[in-house]
Amino acid sequence: MGITFVVAPDSFKESASAKEVCQAMERGIRRVYPDATVRHVPMADGGEGTVEALVDATSGRLIEREVQGPLPGQKVLAKFGILGDGKTAVLEMAEASGLGLVPREKRNPLITSTYGTGELISAALDEGIEEIIIGIGGSATNDGGAGMAQALGAELLDENGAQIGFGGGQLDKISRIDIESMDTRLKNTVIKVACDVDNFLTGPSGAAAVFGPQKGATPDMVALLDKNLEHYAKIIRRDLGKDVNKIEGAGAAGGLGAGLLAFTNATLQHGVKIVIDTIHLEDIVKEADYVITGEGGMDFQTKFGKTPYGVAKVAQKHGKPVFALAGTLGKNFEELYDHGMSAIFSVILKPCTLDEALRDGTDNIEKTVESIVRTIKVIRET
Amino acid sequence: MGITFVVAPDSFKESASAKEVCQAMERGIRRVYPDATVRHVPMADGGEGTVEALVDATSGRLIEREVQGPLPGQKVLAKFGILGDGKTAVLEMAEASGLGLVPREKRNPLITSTYGTGELISAALDEGIEEIIIGIGGSATNDGGAGMAQALGAELLDENGAQIGFGGGQLDKISRIDIESMDTRLKNTVIKVACDVDNFLTGPSGAAAVFGPQKGATPDMVALLDKNLEHYAKIIRRDLGKDVNKIEGAGAAGGLGAGLLAFTNATLQHGVKIVIDTIHLEDIVKEADYVITGEGGMDFQTKFGKTPYGVAKVAQKHGKPVFALAGTLGKNFEELYDHGMSAIFSVILKPCTLDEALRDGTDNIEKTVESIVRTIKVIRET
Repeated sequence: MGITFVVAPDSFKESASAKEVCQAMERGIRRVYPDATVRHVPMADGGEGTVEALVDATSGRLIEREVQGPLPGQKVLAKFGILGDGKTAVLEMAEASGLGLVPREKRNPLITSTYGTGELISAALDEGIEEIIIGIGGSATNDGGAGMAQALGAELLDENGAQIGFGGGQLDKISRIDIESMDTRLKNTVIKVACDVDNFLTGPSGAAAVFGPQKGATPDMVALLDKNLEHYAKIIRRDLGKDVNKIEGAGAAGGLGAGLLAFTNATLQHGVKIVIDTIHLEDIVKEADYVITGEGGMDFQTKFGKTPYGVAKVAQKHGKPVFALAGTLGKNFEELYDHGMSAIFSVILKPCTLDEALRDGTDNIEKTVESIVRTIKVIRET
Repeated sequence: MGITFVVAPDSFKESASAKEVCQAMERGIRRVYPDATVRHVPMADGGEGTVEALVDATSGRLIEREVQGPLPGQKVLAKFGILGDGKTAVLEMAEASGLGLVPREKRNPLITSTYGTGELISAALDEGIEEIIIGIGGSATNDGGAGMAQALGAELLDENGAQIGFGGGQLDKISRIDIESMDTRLKNTVIKVACDVDNFLTGPSGAAAVFGPQKGATPDMVALLDKNLEHYAKIIRRDLGKDVNKIEGAGAAGGLGAGLLAFTNATLQHGVKIVIDTIHLEDIVKEADYVITGEGGMDFQTKFGKTPYGVAKVAQKHGKPVFALAGTLGKNFEELYDHGMSAIFSVILKPCTLDEALRDGTDNIEKTVESIVRTIKVIRET
């Protein structure tokens, strides 16, 4: 009987994609067990890299579409993925409406819109899929997903019966919402929103107060945006019968969470759980002897839903030893030992700068995995 | 049956002594196996820290004596150790005659002498010991051990029948050597010289050519020193019947190796072998389940007689898994896998400066040992 490893890492950000980490881990394993079975499961947690990881993990394909960017009149090329099953699309809102698309001096959540994210959803529906996974981290917007809804046919009408304009600054103009003309394909599409924050839409833990400033909002703007989202939620409650103001996570991505809940049959789930379910990680781990995971950085916060935490939980459930690697082991990383991890190692081989660590990432991963697997081997054999 | 670990590290230089490393390793083990048996064996390889490690390992004691320093008229306080058996002394020549005792601008191997090392040997003999271990690294001298011999009663006489002066620059004045008045206790004392270089006394690989420059010798001085050592060896051959010019290692410590061979019944041995024999490491390792070793830095050169190499060889001989830790894993460290090491880990937890690594040394060691021992545990139990 051969020995089977599952390598299920997240990306090591700015150093190696999840797929490249898998390859490095395999090289480390093969230095010790040349004939081992090594299953690659490039992972993600719903954040940046989720499309790439899921496409890689399922041998899917990438599609690129020109859509509206966060700023008025801006056009951007946005990628999304169709998984290997041909039935599931995976999107990251940041591809269309992300903060990285807006130069620092132009950041202004009064005018940035999620319209492009709606176009991306529409493009995914064009592929004949049955399920959409949306990662909503890294938004430049605070429009409550209003732009997204408009792109999919919702009418957010002002007192003159005209569509309101784009951006969080316009939401107070809504006097009525009409969803008659919305894309009917949405009704038969399962939408899973990868969401790891529990912020409400409004108030002190709301989208504007917590995330507005990093998107360019001044204190005055935060107050205005919060008031506008409050109004938006009130109209949604009245016209669509959904109380998005009471739902944890609705405040994610400038309220895109709320918008998806209001205008589609989306559910919010932990990102890593969506990924684990989508790639059937449990079935793969069940057949393994050992699991190796990792991420560029790990610390006590990893237990709040990061990839190595999710992988460790699955491994623990099936009684499989799971080893976690990181470039940076930060504050109180040992707390992760209470959450299923068998052992945790840094891949850094000597004092070095961050740049050196990023440059040598896959090499260091390979060597550290070799050391772990050598340890496994010697203990198995004595 | 409990589980038994032997922790046998060298010091992590500028960060933690071998004893402190042992303590940190034990803490890491106890986080996983609170009831494990942990045997501390602070190690050294004959270089700096050998006295401290052997005294710690055998519960011996330290003695301090004022002796002559390397420079004329200089007085230094030098430590040496008496091991727990009361019968073995351990000395480092650098304590009395080391380069660290000479300010950079005063470094001059024409005048520096090993006289203080001879005084230290004499002081050790005063303790009634039967064996002396001498570590000879880090010398400031190039006198062929002439000063050492004089301190122990040898007469190195010039053509007028007077003792020559101190330093490598005086050796050409010797016309006759008389050892009639040497300390008779030397005859019944086993002297083991820890020596890891194979340089000859003279010539292109000789003491002056290879080590002279770092001790302050100019090219002209190197030529003079080499010629003087050649003369010294000739007189030794004629008057003492020993041909120290043909022995590998005789060039160690500015020719102190040659001097010890000529004037005492010393043998040259690899430092780590002496340490391993002295503390009976084999007997301890035999009773262990696992061995953990380490040193501040490891690379392919570690296999040329450094502590982790020596410990790994002993562990390998007895079929025990041996894990090696370092702060810096340098060039081609993986070559050590061909020399008995089961697995090699860096203790660095994140990108950091050397200063940070030195400061956090014992903490990092503790956490890395914890990870290794967690790995051992999970593999044993699955």
